[in-house]
Amino acid sequence: MAESRIGFVGVGRMGFNMALRLHDCEYPVTAVYDVNTHAANDLAEKTGAKVCDTLKEVCSLSEVIFTVVTDDEAMRRIFYGESDNLLMDARNKTFINCATLSPSVHEELQLKCREAGGQSLEACMASSIPQARAGTLYLMVGGAEEVYSGVMEILQSISQSIRFVGQAGSAARVKALVNMVMNINTAGLAEGLGLGMALGLDLEMLCEVFAQTGANSRVLETDAEDMLLRDHECYFSSEHAAKDSLIALNLAEEFKLHLPLAKATYEQYEIMKAMGLGALDKSGVAELTFPGRMGK
Amino acid sequence: MAESRIGFVGVGRMGFNMALRLHDCEYPVTAVYDVNTHAANDLAEKTGAKVCDTLKEVCSLSEVIFTVVTDDEAMRRIFYGESDNLLMDARNKTFINCATLSPSVHEELQLKCREAGGQSLEACMASSIPQARAGTLYLMVGGAEEVYSGVMEILQSISQSIRFVGQAGSAARVKALVNMVMNINTAGLAEGLGLGMALGLDLEMLCEVFAQTGANSRVLETDAEDMLLRDHECYFSSEHAAKDSLIALNLAEEFKLHLPLAKATYEQYEIMKAMGLGALDKSGVAELTFPGRMGK
Repeated sequence: MAESRIGFVGVGRMGFNMALRLHDCEYPVTAVYDVNTHAANDLAEKTGAKVCDTLKEVCSLSEVIFTVVTDDEAMRRIFYGESDNLLMDARNKTFINCATLSPSVHEELQLKCREAGGQSLEACMASSIPQARAGTLYLMVGGAEEVYSGVMEILQSISQSIRFVGQAGSAARVKALVNMVMNINTAGLAEGLGLGMALGLDLEMLCEVFAQTGANSRVLETDAEDMLLRDHECYFSSEHAAKDSLIALNLAEEFKLHLPLAKATYEQYEIMKAMGLGALDKSGVAELTFPGRMGK
Repeated sequence: MAESRIGFVGVGRMGFNMALRLHDCEYPVTAVYDVNTHAANDLAEKTGAKVCDTLKEVCSLSEVIFTVVTDDEAMRRIFYGESDNLLMDARNKTFINCATLSPSVHEELQLKCREAGGQSLEACMASSIPQARAGTLYLMVGGAEEVYSGVMEILQSISQSIRFVGQAGSAARVKALVNMVMNINTAGLAEGLGLGMALGLDLEMLCEVFAQTGANSRVLETDAEDMLLRDHECYFSSEHAAKDSLIALNLAEEFKLHLPLAKATYEQYEIMKAMGLGALDKSGVAELTFPGRMGK
């Protein structure tokens, strides 16, 4: 499907950079849709894609459609919206769905796409904007294997590591767990560094010690310096962190599992939203735990 | 001080292995004291040290005394106990204190040792039993620099990486933070894997994905497999995890810092103690979060 025309629905920072990457790789990016018309126009200018007024039009102009939207609700809107939706012209289309969603949304979508003569695949991303731009995303894929094989070449252009996890919904389950644990580690690190600051410790030294010991983590590498410098430019928003932790907590509830750290983390990110800090990067949770910052 | 005679107070698994290592390095380990006479006798047999009936006797037989006890209370007992204590014969002795304690205990101890004509150093360990045996501990040292220089050669025999953190109490502060964050990451990992099990995911796969993503951490390397296999042989006990998280929480309280993840983690380890699981390794917290295990 190297010749497939590619459409994009949702060109926030991830979708935008994935589309640019595919354009760099000489895929025809032919259609773009986003309620943020500024982003859509910008992408159109850079890739030659047509800015579509309707979702149906996106389908008419492309065979493979990436959806990179915010949450379950947005996903339902683009696929099942009353006056206009992607399923209106889904025959022989492949939808690659990249948002972090509740697993059941992917399961339902697979059925509905099939009914409409198309097919869907979940491709959950565990990386951030620079990786999207560079084509080095870590992807977790769920769905039917033949759908995966059909778009593998395209996915390889945006990813340096693809893991096929299993049937529809399973990649979303893994992704929810990844983000749940990542968020816990982030909120925990913010507590450690915040208390270190209160104690008057040299925080650079503290980070070095953390890195050498049982306190080490990926988020120490990616977020610690931002926490110290209060540089919360958004790669992965606190709002999204809250959403993803909640997806995991809802799954846990189905099994009556009590996950107090996931819950405490979710609550921290909800506090950030309530304080109007939801758009900060997830590292912004340090604002709640460092003495003298916003949480005080 | 290569010729210094070395005494050991507290030969649990860490102290025991550190003493063996120093013996291997041809330091004269001359005195040992532990309420667990079995461990003391065992060490005496392996090193030629004398098993002492009193703490005062340990001092009389050695110049450098390592203390590797459980907690603040045990520390106060060996230094300030009414009928017998280490300060009774502290003149020109150097005490190297390795337990994870409240920082204020180290500060007080430095004063009391000086008054008694001796000196003290905190050497907090951020490694486990195999590293103690192999002489590859990661040490955080706090106290007076000249005391540190005086015993540096000895410390280098048990450590592959020593970091001098600052004045008395500061190494204990850093150590409390290391363990607080480590415990959070451990309890968080147990939640992620427990939910993964409930969801029927392949847990080996899940661990591999965690390792490639923002969920990665040192405890993923050290504890994940033990959580899956329920192999909770003790390297660092849940009891100690509770104690160390509490030290950090007490410090936070002084600054009115609200640390919900540290608190949730502390409560998990307290639940383990209440369930009689305090002697399990810290990885045993998975017993609370995996479906169908003890927490259910």
